[in-house]
Amino acid sequence: MSKLTPQSTDFSKWYNEIVLASGLADYSDVKGCMIIKPYGYALWENIQKVMDEKIKELGVDNVYLPLLIPESYFEKEKEHVKGFAPEVAWVTHAGGKKLDERLAIRPTSETIMYRTFARWIASYRDLPLKVNQWANVIRWEMRTRLFLRTTEFLWQEGHTLHETKEQADEMVQNALYMYKTFARDYLAMAVIDGRKSESEKFAGAEYTTSIEAMMKDKKALQLGTSHLLAQNFAKSFEVKFLDKEGKEQTPWPTSWGVSTRMIGGLIMAHGDDKGLIIPPNIAPIQVIIVPIWKDNSEKKIVKNYIEKLKEKLQGLKYKIDWDDGKSPGWKFNEWEMKGVPLRVEVGPKDEASNQIIAVRRDTGEKIKVNFKEAGNKIKELIEEIQRNLLEKNAKFLKENTREYSDYNKFKQDINKENFFALVNWCGDAKCEDKVKNDTKATTRVCLQAEQNHGEKKCLFIRCLQGWARRFFMTIGLKVLPAKNYKMLICSVCLTA
Amino acid sequence: MSKLTPQSTDFSKWYNEIVLASGLADYSDVKGCMIIKPYGYALWENIQKVMDEKIKELGVDNVYLPLLIPESYFEKEKEHVKGFAPEVAWVTHAGGKKLDERLAIRPTSETIMYRTFARWIASYRDLPLKVNQWANVIRWEMRTRLFLRTTEFLWQEGHTLHETKEQADEMVQNALYMYKTFARDYLAMAVIDGRKSESEKFAGAEYTTSIEAMMKDKKALQLGTSHLLAQNFAKSFEVKFLDKEGKEQTPWPTSWGVSTRMIGGLIMAHGDDKGLIIPPNIAPIQVIIVPIWKDNSEKKIVKNYIEKLKEKLQGLKYKIDWDDGKSPGWKFNEWEMKGVPLRVEVGPKDEASNQIIAVRRDTGEKIKVNFKEAGNKIKELIEEIQRNLLEKNAKFLKENTREYSDYNKFKQDINKENFFALVNWCGDAKCEDKVKNDTKATTRVCLQAEQNHGEKKCLFIRCLQGWARRFFMTIGLKVLPAKNYKMLICSVCLTA
Repeated sequence: MSKLTPQSTDFSKWYNEIVLASGLADYSDVKGCMIIKPYGYALWENIQKVMDEKIKELGVDNVYLPLLIPESYFEKEKEHVKGFAPEVAWVTHAGGKKLDERLAIRPTSETIMYRTFARWIASYRDLPLKVNQWANVIRWEMRTRLFLRTTEFLWQEGHTLHETKEQADEMVQNALYMYKTFARDYLAMAVIDGRKSESEKFAGAEYTTSIEAMMKDKKALQLGTSHLLAQNFAKSFEVKFLDKEGKEQTPWPTSWGVSTRMIGGLIMAHGDDKGLIIPPNIAPIQVIIVPIWKDNSEKKIVKNYIEKLKEKLQGLKYKIDWDDGKSPGWKFNEWEMKGVPLRVEVGPKDEASNQIIAVRRDTGEKIKVNFKEAGNKIKELIEEIQRNLLEKNAKFLKENTREYSDYNKFKQDINKENFFALVNWCGDAKCEDKVKNDTKATTRVCLQAEQNHGEKKCLFIRCLQGWARRFFMTIGLKVLPAKNYKMLICSVCLTA
Repeated sequence: MSKLTPQSTDFSKWYNEIVLASGLADYSDVKGCMIIKPYGYALWENIQKVMDEKIKELGVDNVYLPLLIPESYFEKEKEHVKGFAPEVAWVTHAGGKKLDERLAIRPTSETIMYRTFARWIASYRDLPLKVNQWANVIRWEMRTRLFLRTTEFLWQEGHTLHETKEQADEMVQNALYMYKTFARDYLAMAVIDGRKSESEKFAGAEYTTSIEAMMKDKKALQLGTSHLLAQNFAKSFEVKFLDKEGKEQTPWPTSWGVSTRMIGGLIMAHGDDKGLIIPPNIAPIQVIIVPIWKDNSEKKIVKNYIEKLKEKLQGLKYKIDWDDGKSPGWKFNEWEMKGVPLRVEVGPKDEASNQIIAVRRDTGEKIKVNFKEAGNKIKELIEEIQRNLLEKNAKFLKENTREYSDYNKFKQDINKENFFALVNWCGDAKCEDKVKNDTKATTRVCLQAEQNHGEKKCLFIRCLQGWARRFFMTIGLKVLPAKNYKMLICSVCLTA
């Protein structure tokens, strides 16, 4: 097993190497498309499973709509088509013939969804309509990176229609809150949620909200988005309903999604020079047991001992690595690289002294555990690792976020290093453009003045310096390989 | 709610009506593509959940490979391309440019899988390689029908590689057995499994096995297939491994899949003139509770009563229909149409006499149940309905399968009515062609001489007249709307 490039030497190279080396994914010969390998797909399945439950708890039903969208639908919403047309892959021939009309492979499904909704909705009784689909989409990207930006990716896209703007606003917030708590409780990632600037919003949206996470190179990654779509969207597709007074109205539409990009974020948020670190709540393998033996009689002792240990591990996702073609040391390295949260070492000496050795992936700490208490202790450690990863991540985000009120100072700093910056911004696009011209910064999100997500107040944001009560803008760094974008700030407001 | 066309009047029309009326699926404006609605998708999710577990029990890992396949890969295996080329949809333009090479939307993923496997496999240590993917595929069909034959459909495709032909044969059988037991234990369908004739096998396969079910119009539907692929397949993609002696070898490949077509089979196997009948083990809703009340005081009584009943229904998938815009009678019809296995009626009188009324969807039987025993009784009824549906289906299959040894008699009969026929066949394609010319029959499967699926003997087949010990051929009817195919028989063997 060759060593990984250290993160400090070349973070981007580290990322590419670890995705391949850990067996998460592989390149394909199809431009920009990746192969998700078993270990990576198991991670995606875990994400799907939890997220799907959360989506259903919001009263949203799963559906499946066609992959192919006729060009004429696709063109109905002007903003939307302007935003997506350059990225579309077109089917022009099928069944041995040239088609009368080109078919777009969905880059997202709003257009075909609304075409369908128009048939499904007649009165206020049919609202809210809330559906979601787990699907593949294609966006022809020039520069791609495994998980972060691929031509084809897997995602879920939620689409809802509501009687009033207020109800739709609430849905947008509920979806965003779902993503945020998922990131916190499963991915162990402290994210910043808020509203995108006009220039960064979804093509055809009234407004876009997103959750933004800080990677270990202190760049930002957009992990999930939730949009209030413009009513125009519904109008273009003639989606109408009769309200309680019998008057024809246009419903308010939302859409929201997360994708396999989440896996890229997970890698970059927690990984270190030894490899991945996967939070236990989402890990395909939570505990790797590495037996240590020299000869058959030792192997037998260890085997019996592990049999007894297995009873204590019920409810945990564990695996025993019996491969006799590899040394224990080799296995330690391999499972560290794959980011398994806890390693358990079991040799004949451990059996003799009635103990096991547990090694934490997050801290490297080696812990002697009495066999009797092994079950509870391992479960405790698993919880502790999950908690610690989130704490570390939140601390990192906090430590690398700075407030600026002097534009020149900011400009100077951002040319030297990466960080998130919190700045006041008037909201004027001219200011945004100026920052983009002066620096390589990008706008991330405007923090929301008051965040009341569904039934709960967002405690999490508050614990991160009480931003939730202010109306600021965070700034971060786009994860793109070539251009090395840097960050955003609003010069006018700062320098005014 | 308008009445359905009776099955006896026009089975095909009944099918199209019930798919729409029950809310399983909808037509889309995209040629041959369907929209799977919440109720239909919930059914597919239930199928996926069980099948995915079974697939993992076979030691198969889930992966995800690209949707798009370069034309040059696609053409590598001659038989395969000949079989699939007429059905392919081609992407020719993307990202605003004409592509250098056309990309096929996968009609199935063998070609891209083998291209990938060639990189993943070096020695016998890498074998067996067993992967599966849940994906959408596109086959440009001229005549389509909801669920049964759609341009785009959802499926799982398993792909494995083995050191020896024997191991690959076993995998083919294990997958087929998995499908068969799934059909039996979940879909409540008695299926016939066996080997396809040469003319009906998968393009590029050494042989194809399938499970075939009888629909209520006595036509056959192929529910799932499992193939031993020709080694040529691996060779075309240069998939090789070094065996234990260090000699270069070609592995033996298999592939196997089931699709959303299963839902079409389920509908046609169990449904009646009132609508769907969904077997409880796969039903999105197992019990529908219809409260009956006249005024608010009655509603309150019923509500309290149902609250107590809910405690008894834990572990069951139930739903309470409180909609006050519809009468109980309307609801009875609606939930019967949607095929919910058990209806529970609860009115104030029931509360007074400490009972509930349960109505079976499969038999129409009305059962008074003492409230105290309601939990156990309802669970018993659910099991009983599942069992009864399978028994009925198996009986129907048995009653409508005939043995023939006289070709002329067969020809006469098959022109008058639908049935499955068991006949001896030499295996010669000329005989098959003769039958196809003389009648509209199609070959279904050759029964396997001895069926030892993995660890278990196939008891199920034995219970169906002991066919498993004979080497016969079943004949049935293709479910195609236009041509109205009828059946197959081998004249030569019969008339020789």
